[in-house]
Amino acid sequence: MSLDGTYDPGNIFARILRGEMPSVRVFEDDHVLAFMDVFPQARGHTLVIPKHSTARNFLEETPENIGPLMEGVQRVAKAVRAALNPDGIVITQFNGSPAGQTVYHLHVHIIPRWEGVALGRHGEGMADVEELKGLAAQISAKIA
Amino acid sequence: MSLDGTYDPGNIFARILRGEMPSVRVFEDDHVLAFMDVFPQARGHTLVIPKHSTARNFLEETPENIGPLMEGVQRVAKAVRAALNPDGIVITQFNGSPAGQTVYHLHVHIIPRWEGVALGRHGEGMADVEELKGLAAQISAKIA
Repeated sequence: MSLDGTYDPGNIFARILRGEMPSVRVFEDDHVLAFMDVFPQARGHTLVIPKHSTARNFLEETPENIGPLMEGVQRVAKAVRAALNPDGIVITQFNGSPAGQTVYHLHVHIIPRWEGVALGRHGEGMADVEELKGLAAQISAKIA
Repeated sequence: MSLDGTYDPGNIFARILRGEMPSVRVFEDDHVLAFMDVFPQARGHTLVIPKHSTARNFLEETPENIGPLMEGVQRVAKAVRAALNPDGIVITQFNGSPAGQTVYHLHVHIIPRWEGVALGRHGEGMADVEELKGLAAQISAKIA
């Protein structure tokens, strides 16, 4: 899908927000929900999405929602760091399929990096849910 | 460099902000400066940095500066789209060298993507400054 289009309320993240689909939740406040990516590119790969939004991507989001979203991303990224002690963290956001976007509800990736460990390819395989739950508990415990 | 460390006021982006180093500027407001990446990974690769910050990375930024920075990123990304009509846009931010960070003043990458065009590697080669000036003028003209 290109950058153009209409928000589909049946997208998987909208269904997660409505509780129609399971997810391994890490953090939630009035503005954002954070949960583990089930196709992680690295151990601890976490997604943050706005809860009250029909923006398919970052360009479509209302400017007043950008701050609360990204403050949530920072809060979760700090917790990822505190929990997992990575050597680096990539924060990335894809707009349109040529940029790597696969779900059309705005979302931000928090991807821990370790020296000498290559990134997995998104979609390489589904993570073990019990392992994700363990990581989520570790990260969640470090939310400040 | 790892995620730990001290802000170095001699870093290249701090020098650009102080006007001690040249840059091809795209946009500036009270909070952010946007300029062309001289080692672009794609045509139109633009950087956005906070003007009043000694954060080396996203994790260190004060939460109150996150919103103005990322609203600036959105504004510039929309202008990149309007000017260059890419098929997608990656918005990405690296924390620590294992994540790809090379300059230790917080910065956000806006990288246009086109179907079938692979990304260049950052640092592959320096862009032609006259070409960057042309792109900056196109993007700048579309800032809303």
